[in-house]
Amino acid sequence: MGRWEPDSRGRLQEAALALYSERGFDQTTAAEIAGRAGVTERTFFRHFADKREVLFGGSELLQERILTGVAEAPDGYTPLEAVGRGLDAAAALLGEARRDLSAQRHAVIAANPELRERELAKLALYAAAVAATLRRRGVGEPQATLAAEAGMSVLRLAIERWANSDDERSLAIIMKDFMAELRAVTAGG
Amino acid sequence: MGRWEPDSRGRLQEAALALYSERGFDQTTAAEIAGRAGVTERTFFRHFADKREVLFGGSELLQERILTGVAEAPDGYTPLEAVGRGLDAAAALLGEARRDLSAQRHAVIAANPELRERELAKLALYAAAVAATLRRRGVGEPQATLAAEAGMSVLRLAIERWANSDDERSLAIIMKDFMAELRAVTAGG
Repeated sequence: MGRWEPDSRGRLQEAALALYSERGFDQTTAAEIAGRAGVTERTFFRHFADKREVLFGGSELLQERILTGVAEAPDGYTPLEAVGRGLDAAAALLGEARRDLSAQRHAVIAANPELRERELAKLALYAAAVAATLRRRGVGEPQATLAAEAGMSVLRLAIERWANSDDERSLAIIMKDFMAELRAVTAGG
Repeated sequence: MGRWEPDSRGRLQEAALALYSERGFDQTTAAEIAGRAGVTERTFFRHFADKREVLFGGSELLQERILTGVAEAPDGYTPLEAVGRGLDAAAALLGEARRDLSAQRHAVIAANPELRERELAKLALYAAAVAATLRRRGVGEPQATLAAEAGMSVLRLAIERWANSDDERSLAIIMKDFMAELRAVTAGG
């Protein structure tokens, strides 16, 4: 297949996730991923800086969408409503991904302590950025960080539910449902 | 000073935090910590497995207190009320520590990416354990994890406020105040 094969990035992701699942992340090389995808190793490195980026690429775009959603929420929205707008934007972006690939991605990360730490660090960065965006909307502390971190819990759990279960609802619907669960669970206490 | 000097552990912690603050964590050796505390390196390793344990020792005890607080909350408590009992137990344990040492500890961790990741991983473990304890109380998912993670946000932020600010209130009072802030911020959305 030619080097300008349009969907080589998608085939590389699929091949990488299959190999990470079969052999484990540490036991897979970039050359093997390229081989299974039917492209050269050079093509792999044109799309991804390293093996980890297959799993974490796209996180800047996701963060940008979330922050834009929060920043552009109407005036008068509560902090959590504004975070909800960010989650809507995340669901719109991620909900188009293939559920089976998302499920594989989560299983690979869950099986590897180093990848789990990176995933946690990524979510912590999102939360800090969302809190900063809320503060620019005039929200004080600790409210901004509490709303941001609770929102990132909703994001992570909703994606996991969507990817790993028989729940047939869209990611957007699951996200809204989990936001309602958050309000319910914190209302009573 | 003799090897059975009763507070050598406390002096080692104080010496370690001072050196980590002055030179950075990576630039400090166990021998230097022992030297400043006036004990032998051997005494250091009788108290701590390594340099990192000066910062993270005691986390098993803290987790145990939190989980006991959650598990023993009265029947009929909401998930977040039960988490609040765990936070009360944490405040009772940690509130006896010296604020200045807690502030130093946070500054050292904040300055070092590897230590920040370890701190995040520790909080994630607490949250997972609290969620498991809530499930044993009959709480379903995602409610258990949402309540547990929101509670761990409160824990972290309350400790930071207590350690790093001019807020003269006790850790227990700040913790209760931040729990109320969590309820307020999630109620409106």
